[in-house]
Amino acid sequence: LYGGIEAGGTKFVCGIGTGPDDLKAESFPTTTPTETLNHAIEFFREYSDRQQLTAIGIASFGFLDLNTSSSTFGCITLTTKPGWSNTDILGIIRRALNVPVAIDTDVNGAALGEYRFGNAKDKDNFIYLTIGTGIGGGGMINGKLMHGLIHPEMGHIRIPHDREKDPYHGLCQYHNDCFEGLASGPAISKRWGKPAEELPDNHPAWELEAHYIALALTNYICILSPERIILGGGVMEKSVMLPLIREEVKKLLKDFLRKPEITENIDNYIVTPKLGKYAGVLGAIALTEEKVKTI
Amino acid sequence: LYGGIEAGGTKFVCGIGTGPDDLKAESFPTTTPTETLNHAIEFFREYSDRQQLTAIGIASFGFLDLNTSSSTFGCITLTTKPGWSNTDILGIIRRALNVPVAIDTDVNGAALGEYRFGNAKDKDNFIYLTIGTGIGGGGMINGKLMHGLIHPEMGHIRIPHDREKDPYHGLCQYHNDCFEGLASGPAISKRWGKPAEELPDNHPAWELEAHYIALALTNYICILSPERIILGGGVMEKSVMLPLIREEVKKLLKDFLRKPEITENIDNYIVTPKLGKYAGVLGAIALTEEKVKTI
Ligand SMILES: Nc1ncnc2c1ncn2[C@@H]1O[C@H](COP(=O)(O)OP(=O)(O)O)[C@@H](O)[C@H]1O
Ligand SMILES: Nc1ncnc2c1ncn2[C@@H]1O[C@H](COP(=O)(O)OP(=O)(O)O)[C@@H](O)[C@H]1O
Ligand SMILES: [Zn+2]
Ligand SMILES: [Zn+2]
Repeated sequence: LYGGIEAGGTKFVCGIGTGPDDLKAESFPTTTPTETLNHAIEFFREYSDRQQLTAIGIASFGFLDLNTSSSTFGCITLTTKPGWSNTDILGIIRRALNVPVAIDTDVNGAALGEYRFGNAKDKDNFIYLTIGTGIGGGGMINGKLMHGLIHPEMGHIRIPHDREKDPYHGLCQYHNDCFEGLASGPAISKRWGKPAEELPDNHPAWELEAHYIALALTNYICILSPERIILGGGVMEKSVMLPLIREEVKKLLKDFLRKPEITENIDNYIVTPKLGKYAGVLGAIALTEEKVKTI
Repeated sequence: LYGGIEAGGTKFVCGIGTGPDDLKAESFPTTTPTETLNHAIEFFREYSDRQQLTAIGIASFGFLDLNTSSSTFGCITLTTKPGWSNTDILGIIRRALNVPVAIDTDVNGAALGEYRFGNAKDKDNFIYLTIGTGIGGGGMINGKLMHGLIHPEMGHIRIPHDREKDPYHGLCQYHNDCFEGLASGPAISKRWGKPAEELPDNHPAWELEAHYIALALTNYICILSPERIILGGGVMEKSVMLPLIREEVKKLLKDFLRKPEITENIDNYIVTPKLGKYAGVLGAIALTEEKVKTI
């Protein structure tokens, strides 16, 4: 059996199974590292005690150290989540359950889930973006999960910010008005003085939000030329968002990149995740196959 | 023998050889497709007549169709260069010389040249950016040249444009003030009313230019997490640029991404091409090895 852990800053999802139709999962809030990781370990304990557990994959928030030759490989190195900086998440799980453990970012996990079981099945070049408490992106290029010097931090790109139209200064602790600083769920809530989910569909918040998201997406398109973009996260639950974003992306690209995949079929180009809240844990399970051999 | 063609909008470079120390090359201006491609064909004719030519690689300006299953594979589909839209550059060269031909973008060609023979030798994740008449980017991810739905068009990302500090509206025919619209060589010349190369080192043009380039680079870094960035093109010949860009990238990233490769060793992170004006043609030659088998 293969296990997966989606380690999010808000909640953890642990699961065992082989796909969306064969998944036993449990979700619990992220509290302290000790309490939360113990909870995860308990979830898998019965399987490891019975020697049924072959490997575990972790799709985690971070920054993560994913450099296998580093002394802090598998650690959450630095995070705004109090108490979680310098947590050896991979080591703690591995030592407690005594199985091989694979790790990647939360968004690469969700991307891999959608690649294996969901809306990115036939795509070797795609992006998975989540717009929630933070904004994060991952995905595949040439059929491999995106990595590099560190890992993508797509939420922190700089985009045009017209301060006359939108005087809100942004809330990124590093950059103020980067994409995440302007367009995360908390940024919407702070700008308009109300939780994002309570703003009505006809509120001007959504057009502005779609504009910022579309600016970021067109930048990703120019840089990566993805074959599909999957948008997840709490903010995308607002159903007016997806059509607004699609329209705005077309408007921003103008006559540039006249590919029918975008100009004629954008409903099939910018999509939501198929696996919903289980993309991360299913991707984490799939990580074991991709990676355990290399650990 | 393997041949390479760097097909640029301003000039073509044709070459035969095995590396920087064994290269016979010739350069000539880009005029009409017929005249220019005939000139290239003449360069290789003696070798093909003697059956010495195994394959040719082309690194071309574009847009290009790089989809091998498309009916217009190998064509320059659309370009601002008059007369060159819908030019079957691969087909014309292949039929005239009767050898296998590989093709990729001009910037992926230069990137591959630097990967094989230059400043990207040990890097499987890097970007090559040229800042000249236009701005274009390519590079490798996971050890493979960047491709996707089309190919990267990194010059056309949107970046913050403070119209009070810089009222120039930009010259991109698609987007006005995208990165290329604000920061290409012609944009500098139009903004300040003088050819870029004639502006003195202490002119405010260069600080502004470095700011725009650094905004784009930090976006590339957040999205791709490259292990190195190589900056070429005419504008980079201005020697004040490179140090200004390095400083500004560090300033823009702030405390974000505290990797010593960037914070302590940026002179080794943002660099110029080693092969200079021969990166493209050497990369084009190297393309034959990467690709001819798949054609
Ligand atoms: N229906 C909704 N419409 C708009 N925003 C929402 C909605 N539901 C949740 N959000 C916002 O999404 C954010 C939470 O995102 P989510 O992806 O659920 O969590 P996390 O990013 O912490 O994993 C919050 O800022 C919340 O205000
Ligand atoms: N020394 C220099 N300093 C600044 N800009 C320069 C310099 N030399 C050339 N340029 C600018 O670079 C552009 C040409 O770029 P180049 O890379 O040589 O050609 P292309 O992009 O057409 O292949 C022109 O806009 C020119 O003004
Ligand atoms: Zn930021
Ligand atoms: Zn543009």
